[in-house]
Amino acid sequence: MKIIGIDPGTAIVGVGVLEKKNGKLTVKNYQAITTPPIDKEKRLKIIFQKLNEILIQEKPEIVVVEELFFSKNVKTAISVGEARGVVLLASALNNIPVLELKPVEVKTIVTGYGHAPKSQVEYMITRLLGLKTPPKPDDVADALAIAYAGFLKMGGLL
Amino acid sequence: MKIIGIDPGTAIVGVGVLEKKNGKLTVKNYQAITTPPIDKEKRLKIIFQKLNEILIQEKPEIVVVEELFFSKNVKTAISVGEARGVVLLASALNNIPVLELKPVEVKTIVTGYGHAPKSQVEYMITRLLGLKTPPKPDDVADALAIAYAGFLKMGGLL
Repeated sequence: MKIIGIDPGTAIVGVGVLEKKNGKLTVKNYQAITTPPIDKEKRLKIIFQKLNEILIQEKPEIVVVEELFFSKNVKTAISVGEARGVVLLASALNNIPVLELKPVEVKTIVTGYGHAPKSQVEYMITRLLGLKTPPKPDDVADALAIAYAGFLKMGGLL
Repeated sequence: MKIIGIDPGTAIVGVGVLEKKNGKLTVKNYQAITTPPIDKEKRLKIIFQKLNEILIQEKPEIVVVEELFFSKNVKTAISVGEARGVVLLASALNNIPVLELKPVEVKTIVTGYGHAPKSQVEYMITRLLGLKTPPKPDDVADALAIAYAGFLKMGGLL
């Protein structure tokens, strides 16, 4: 089973791909798609094209994203929504089903505590995946945590 | 000059195309892209594909959307953002520049009052464009109002 976790944003999209092979969970790929501060629609085009390449190359069986982004700021929520829309579209165009997990669910699976701070999620995901150094930037660590949570949920390991 | 106004949403996307030919502004096309209540990513795919067809067919020189959607509800803001993301992406993939107008600006141009209710916008856009009946649903009337405001702004008529 191969799963991709995605943490969307207009400036940075975190991407993490996990694969289970011979009963072992391995990190297949992780990276940040970054966009320069140009017109928003051009940033979304870059995100779409790079993500599309990754989906075609990795052929994951499922895309996992966080269900809801809580924000005090409606402008931020719309901006994250725009990037999310492009991520969901790229998944649908590649016929890959999407699993949405609540942030509290991802944090609980990774750290045991639904309101864990980012640093704790990063620490735990680095250990759980046996990485030598913490994945950077935060968005990539988050994407790996999302993929990991999706993996445990889909794999019936919870 | 040909301008398309778009009012995005996950369930309904209002679309209105205006064209200036021989000094006269005419309504070229208006329609609602509707999606059934299926998985969100599949709805976004339908929106993308239908909008892409319209952009290829109409070849507008500019896409006009409203800049910001005010919402008390973050979930609604994210949902509108997702549909907006797909609209902006389709524009960028077709190399059509995007003009974003504030809702208050659209209402002022169409009705003279920045906080006019929907019914007033609908009444005025029907008259201004010389339509026999008010365009329905609301999303289409909004899209035409957005296109009209974009037209006046781009055409230097304001």
